[in-house]
Amino acid sequence: MSDKKSIYKPRPISGFPEWLPEVRLVEQQWFDHIRRVFESYGFCSIETPSVEEIGVLEAKGEVDKEIYVIERLHKEDGDKEARLALHFDQTVPLARYVAQNFNELVFPFKRYQMQKVWRGERPQAGRFREFYQCDIDVINIDALPLHFDAEMPAIMWEILAALPGMKNEKIQMRISNRKILMGLLGEFAPEKTLSVTRVIDKVEKIGIDRTEAELKNLDLSSSEIQAIKDLIAIKTSDPNDLMKRVTSLSQKYQNNLLLAGTQELFFILENLKHLPPNSCIADLSIVRGLDYYTGIVYETVFLDDPGYGSICSGGRYEDLASGYINKKLPGVGISIGFSRLFERMRLQNKLPVNAKSPADILMVLPSEERRPQTANAAQALRRRGLKVELYHAPKKIPDQMKYASRKGIPFVWFPPFDDAGKHEVKDMTTGQQAEANPDKWEKP
Amino acid sequence: MSDKKSIYKPRPISGFPEWLPEVRLVEQQWFDHIRRVFESYGFCSIETPSVEEIGVLEAKGEVDKEIYVIERLHKEDGDKEARLALHFDQTVPLARYVAQNFNELVFPFKRYQMQKVWRGERPQAGRFREFYQCDIDVINIDALPLHFDAEMPAIMWEILAALPGMKNEKIQMRISNRKILMGLLGEFAPEKTLSVTRVIDKVEKIGIDRTEAELKNLDLSSSEIQAIKDLIAIKTSDPNDLMKRVTSLSQKYQNNLLLAGTQELFFILENLKHLPPNSCIADLSIVRGLDYYTGIVYETVFLDDPGYGSICSGGRYEDLASGYINKKLPGVGISIGFSRLFERMRLQNKLPVNAKSPADILMVLPSEERRPQTANAAQALRRRGLKVELYHAPKKIPDQMKYASRKGIPFVWFPPFDDAGKHEVKDMTTGQQAEANPDKWEKP
Repeated sequence: MSDKKSIYKPRPISGFPEWLPEVRLVEQQWFDHIRRVFESYGFCSIETPSVEEIGVLEAKGEVDKEIYVIERLHKEDGDKEARLALHFDQTVPLARYVAQNFNELVFPFKRYQMQKVWRGERPQAGRFREFYQCDIDVINIDALPLHFDAEMPAIMWEILAALPGMKNEKIQMRISNRKILMGLLGEFAPEKTLSVTRVIDKVEKIGIDRTEAELKNLDLSSSEIQAIKDLIAIKTSDPNDLMKRVTSLSQKYQNNLLLAGTQELFFILENLKHLPPNSCIADLSIVRGLDYYTGIVYETVFLDDPGYGSICSGGRYEDLASGYINKKLPGVGISIGFSRLFERMRLQNKLPVNAKSPADILMVLPSEERRPQTANAAQALRRRGLKVELYHAPKKIPDQMKYASRKGIPFVWFPPFDDAGKHEVKDMTTGQQAEANPDKWEKP
Repeated sequence: MSDKKSIYKPRPISGFPEWLPEVRLVEQQWFDHIRRVFESYGFCSIETPSVEEIGVLEAKGEVDKEIYVIERLHKEDGDKEARLALHFDQTVPLARYVAQNFNELVFPFKRYQMQKVWRGERPQAGRFREFYQCDIDVINIDALPLHFDAEMPAIMWEILAALPGMKNEKIQMRISNRKILMGLLGEFAPEKTLSVTRVIDKVEKIGIDRTEAELKNLDLSSSEIQAIKDLIAIKTSDPNDLMKRVTSLSQKYQNNLLLAGTQELFFILENLKHLPPNSCIADLSIVRGLDYYTGIVYETVFLDDPGYGSICSGGRYEDLASGYINKKLPGVGISIGFSRLFERMRLQNKLPVNAKSPADILMVLPSEERRPQTANAAQALRRRGLKVELYHAPKKIPDQMKYASRKGIPFVWFPPFDDAGKHEVKDMTTGQQAEANPDKWEKP
């Protein structure tokens, strides 16, 4: 190579994660596991383009600052195309998709979506600008049974508890119903609903004292503040306890919305009794920031680090696609913040990062002459679903075994070195080596 | 819903494909199949960000017109970040990845990559601006055995022949070696190599007569043009026939590069003899447009529609990452134009599009009282890997069965309607119904 050549040192791009093969392997295990559980409940996959017309994305004004627009580098003047931008979530594209394909879909429409989303954040540590989300939503026409609201956390619990590396994490799903707080506020401060909700949304971060101070700033009376504090202090996994505590509170504030919301939440807890104790609780301080939730809402936290924020969130909404279609389409959805969760586990060295290759077996190549027979043995193993890398050159056996070690390939296969020889396979973990038949051998 | 509400009719974005759930299901089967074969040969997955710094992409100047840059919608003045753009292939990101992670990778580095790429084309029918490619490459330090060049088409043949819906397609992989043409031209017109290559690259499109005319425009003599015509007319799957025909041609033009290239191609054909007759042939008119190929090159066409162009292409290159790192990294790679191929099969109605859901079973809900037992039966089936959608409401049985039909779910499960009842399962294809045990039942 010429020394004169200028060398450009490539560098990572802040906010755009990229993994080494051994980490990517675990990431794939995560995706496979999530997909398997989603599909086991009958959710179908959809995938939308990476972009939407900018008008579609801006319909949900909240995050317009974070949109990445795309443009052809050498675009000609006078291009009349609509501006396109990368989607920042999977809900806005879902709404557009359902409206666009309304007549082709069967309702209730149960879909999962596992795609990259983009947010044009300023680069800063730990903030992704490109990341994966894994969403499920159920949409129906006119009305959607509450059973789906109970199914959502059960599915997510099944997923989160079994993600490779997550076994020892203590996580908790916290469920509330916005109707309860709305009902309470309807009694004495309906016009302050939005501002009170915003204050309560921060309680985990700022603590109850600052929350109380901020509520005072909203000109609420002491008894009103006390009622809000009593409400958001309710945290219980026992449906009867929930009922008792809200009822005691609501003796003063009789309100239909409040009662209906409490009954719904009672129903959800009743339907989650099969999960481990305290995995799912009613927590009436959960409100979720997004305006479009109208009923049940979910958050999920690490119990030993609740300040890290929610890793799996969602809720019920009245109407998915009202801007696009003259049908009422209520839905309920929940989403795993995949990349954020994966990155946390990675940084804490909790991922089972072992192999740099998906191969089960490294097939030793004894000599150039034995290549055809050796390739046949590899092919026989592949036909039965095994992943086999055939070593590329008849190097010394220790060199070939070293290659298997470096890639973390768990078995090394020795094919016959001559016509009289036998197949043997070595378990690189235990060191045991035994005769084997490529048409029959299975991983132990 | 209010009638006053303005309704925005969403529309597809030209060049950004999106599928209904039933098509997406087949697309997933394609991805799963491709991934399974890649991994069965020990290729590891990597995934690079959707974007690269624009300087990285422009290093390969050829396609700079087609780059999509991304920009924050509300970017502040004075932002000093490098400009980012969506990648237009997976080779440029691979080169950057290998250079950046050189010390962490084990060589030969065998990776597969199945991602979206973007090209900022003017919108036009049949031209995608966002599409999937499925690539494999093997990279080594200093030298890479020719066996990998033979493995590439074998792997791709295994994939293409078994993609759902592709069974009856007659496809052919056409293999050449750029060294042969380079060697020939080295004898009488080394300075015209690039322009001659460009003419030959079009021969399938423009025919041999126009090719000859264009070669004349390059000021080549009749005997030189004849030699080129004789060379590119060589199409054979028989390695000995290849050797004979090139040798007869090269009696006049003795050239080491030409001979070495022919021997390599002979070796490739020898190593592909296990594939069906005429699935892979040497075709010396194949040159591939891209400059970085230096040896073996591949294309794949539909035999009944060669003008459609190549659906799977690649080749050998001398040095992957010369701009980034002071190591010589030869490699060989091949890529399926996934979206283009999938879209062709879809438009020809050849995809096995059946179900709108991944579910194996629709579990009937007999009554609200029986929900717990019914949910348990569904869970028992899921634990054994079956995909089960539990119907959401105790509607009339014909309604529930109609739902299964509309979604294309192949089995309907009837749990006990009371404590004395039994489980039964109905095969929706055959109409047969039989008693079944949720802890034991398997798909027939």
